Amino acid sequence: MPIHVTVWHEYRHEKHNPKVAEIYPQGMHEAIASHLRKSADLIVRTATLDEPEHGLSEEVLRNTDVMTWWGHMAHGDVQDAIVDRVYHRVLEGMGLIVLHSGHFSKIFRKLMGTSCNLKWRDAGEREILWVTRPGHPIVKDIDDHFVLEREEMYGEFFDVPEPECTFLISTFAGGEAFRSGCTWTRGLGRIAYFRPGHELFPTYHDPRVLRVIENAVRWARPTPGLGPAAFGHREMGWVEGK
Amino acid sequence: MPIHVTVWHEYRHEKHNPKVAEIYPQGMHEAIASHLRKSADLIVRTATLDEPEHGLSEEVLRNTDVMTWWGHMAHGDVQDAIVDRVYHRVLEGMGLIVLHSGHFSKIFRKLMGTSCNLKWRDAGEREILWVTRPGHPIVKDIDDHFVLEREEMYGEFFDVPEPECTFLISTFAGGEAFRSGCTWTRGLGRIAYFRPGHELFPTYHDPRVLRVIENAVRWARPTPGLGPAAFGHREMGWVEGK
Amino acid sequence: MPIHVTVWHEYRHEKHNPKVAEIYPQGMHEAIASHLRKSADLIVRTATLDEPEHGLSEEVLRNTDVMTWWGHMAHGDVQDAIVDRVYHRVLEGMGLIVLHSGHFSKIFRKLMGTSCNLKWRDAGEREILWVTRPGHPIVKDIDDHFVLEREEMYGEFFDVPEPECTFLISTFAGGEAFRSGCTWTRGLGRIAYFRPGHELFPTYHDPRVLRVIENAVRWARPTPGLGPAAFGHREMGWVEGK
Amino acid sequence: MPIHVTVWHEYRHEKHNPKVAEIYPQGMHEAIASHLRKSADLIVRTATLDEPEHGLSEEVLRNTDVMTWWGHMAHGDVQDAIVDRVYHRVLEGMGLIVLHSGHFSKIFRKLMGTSCNLKWRDAGEREILWVTRPGHPIVKDIDDHFVLEREEMYGEFFDVPEPECTFLISTFAGGEAFRSGCTWTRGLGRIAYFRPGHELFPTYHDPRVLRVIENAVRWARPTPGLGPAAFGHREMGWVEGK
Repeated sequence: MPIHVTVWHEYRHEKHNPKVAEIYPQGMHEAIASHLRKSADLIVRTATLDEPEHGLSEEVLRNTDVMTWWGHMAHGDVQDAIVDRVYHRVLEGMGLIVLHSGHFSKIFRKLMGTSCNLKWRDAGEREILWVTRPGHPIVKDIDDHFVLEREEMYGEFFDVPEPECTFLISTFAGGEAFRSGCTWTRGLGRIAYFRPGHELFPTYHDPRVLRVIENAVRWARPTPGLGPAAFGHREMGWVEGK
Repeated sequence: MPIHVTVWHEYRHEKHNPKVAEIYPQGMHEAIASHLRKSADLIVRTATLDEPEHGLSEEVLRNTDVMTWWGHMAHGDVQDAIVDRVYHRVLEGMGLIVLHSGHFSKIFRKLMGTSCNLKWRDAGEREILWVTRPGHPIVKDIDDHFVLEREEMYGEFFDVPEPECTFLISTFAGGEAFRSGCTWTRGLGRIAYFRPGHELFPTYHDPRVLRVIENAVRWARPTPGLGPAAFGHREMGWVEGK
Repeated sequence: MPIHVTVWHEYRHEKHNPKVAEIYPQGMHEAIASHLRKSADLIVRTATLDEPEHGLSEEVLRNTDVMTWWGHMAHGDVQDAIVDRVYHRVLEGMGLIVLHSGHFSKIFRKLMGTSCNLKWRDAGEREILWVTRPGHPIVKDIDDHFVLEREEMYGEFFDVPEPECTFLISTFAGGEAFRSGCTWTRGLGRIAYFRPGHELFPTYHDPRVLRVIENAVRWARPTPGLGPAAFGHREMGWVEGK
Repeated sequence: MPIHVTVWHEYRHEKHNPKVAEIYPQGMHEAIASHLRKSADLIVRTATLDEPEHGLSEEVLRNTDVMTWWGHMAHGDVQDAIVDRVYHRVLEGMGLIVLHSGHFSKIFRKLMGTSCNLKWRDAGEREILWVTRPGHPIVKDIDDHFVLEREEMYGEFFDVPEPECTFLISTFAGGEAFRSGCTWTRGLGRIAYFRPGHELFPTYHDPRVLRVIENAVRWARPTPGLGPAAFGHREMGWVEGK
């Protein structure tokens, strides 16, 4: 059964910073989407901030199984009504994969219920990502660790609720640690956070990074066949068997 | 070391419904507060919706270690600015004990990141609460179960994030089940949800119910002595030892 | 990709109690196995206590992706060496679905690290199972609840580690509650416990029960493609990038 | 109310290796115990492997609220009967603080239900421990991180069940990461693992390390006042209210 994926991207850095445009000539979203499109069972579209409704109309959302989200310089420009729309789709079962600086997006903070604060340093330093839950579908085909030669540092304390599963922990050349791969459930929706992806480095061209994103998309797909009765606020009569 | 407790209450049902006023002549908040005041180490104040700033000024919050929250018919009347104020205090470490219909309060939904939906039936039926984590401080002095002869039914699915600990599960005469005692952490703050407390029954006069609330208040008190560096979004230089 | 399933069964009650034999003429294992065999992607074998090595040779285990386990009157007859063999396969990634009185099996207690105690009453009473994590693959195609007219009661406190996910909670006519569907991870292996299945009732002929077991088998299948480096105790040189 | 603490130590390295004896002339257990004894509310005894019953008689265990455990070269010499005794006391509520190479002790593996494997390198390198759950009582008075100049490296994958709380993550000069502070519950007992403490370094003279151990002891103390009915396997009649 195919998975309908919407790769959402802020798509502002590429337009303002020639260095970013050089690394991602079609935008970071196209780097991710073009990888996912190699799989016949993934039906991929992109959506960006400056499109009408940020590219996230009711119809697009109704036809999205899993969404990836990257934002950074313009979190405040995302309309609250669209955030609510995405939020309700997650509670209904849509998977959400939050990438890098998306930690500070309105949608991620709304789903977490915390500040999603962290420490950071933009020094292009070495990051090593260690697998802390081998056997989890999100780290399928990933060795016990992998190295990104140049990345932004994110450091703890990462103010998120205790993850249901921490599948990757990063260390940085400067000595910091960060829970780089985490999962949560909200309503019927599965959520993963995956840390790497600073706009000044070619992270979304890295095959291991793309592999984790693809794995996460598959892991987060909604379970089909859910009865309508499973969800919602309602007054009850007496159940059968009384 | 004393614990500063603020018992917050909507305090509307008592004013509109003589039956509620008969059960709680001074309001439900006073039933809870007067129990807590029996302990010399608990310094208790109350705050209600119709006071200025809902009784939750910056100063009150700064001097509150743990807050209890009951609301039902007027969740929408709680100002968003005050909700934000309570939210930030929880992230800073204030404990929050959410009671009964407080499941649908703005503050609880904001901290959970979910709809907090559930099923319900107002039939005054028998509830049995079973301890599912004996040894947890919140169920200190509680036997393996206790019975409330007449309560409102709440039924699953309760749309909250998977609890860090489920310490009580209820069954109802009608056959439903509900996770009646749950804990979560948000930022530095400890949160507990405790189900019983319909306004038409004398639940907050029950010694077992009051015991759980008192235990929860003690469990949720902030850890003192936290360094300011533990929290917040900040750019980092290189840490020592590099 | 096919999933190799081994349905393990104690298979003693059927030989000693004509009532059980009447309900399960080929044994409880065949009721489960024959359901699973309807799916072309499930390759199913059975194994029972009184076979050599309890039917669980090294070769059988090497070729098992997911095992189901039912035992009751003869937990003590299971050889420790075979328990260790199953245990190590779970840590390597084999899924394990523990059924009903299997809660007291050597293998489940070894994996949980607790007593797995509970309360019980054999009165053939009504059980209602409520879904507490809709959207989880294990409750695919299950409505918000289902009823078993006659079952043994199991009651809390169920002495297991806090589950990673509680997907079903039961209530019984007598008023008890029980966490009837729970998941944990041990090593690379996924473990589910599913409560119903007393030998004196036709529970494993019930389509909802069989559906949950089938769903659990699919959910617990190992993630393929795991690198050998992901696992094991070893001394390290310096990693690359230093 | 005082907390009765038993500091258990293998106490073999000190007798065989003059370097260890130089750092810990009275043994590592005395370094820990003498710190704890500074608090009037902690009543501290020590127990070691080569004492009769490893110093852990029934009477000692009955009078222990929290135990700390360090072992390394002689895990196999700990008698299974004594391991079972400690195990049952944990399920009854005794707290257990497992230190460093105690990860491979019989008692920790029995409680975890996993191999407790990890990677390691004995190169006396810099370890930085980052607080990942500020506000948790175990990291009271600990800043956002602290540095140990020379320690043994432990690296992921650490084969333990997903912790209920991960309060410290370490990075090492070699680039590895490790979940250095974790908690679990087993039965009524609270368990913490705390990583540092190689015998060749003066780690248990470090005030931050001793602070974490002291905090952990306080956090892990049993909840008093537990009713006897809370625990155990028993057949039930019908509960009241039916």
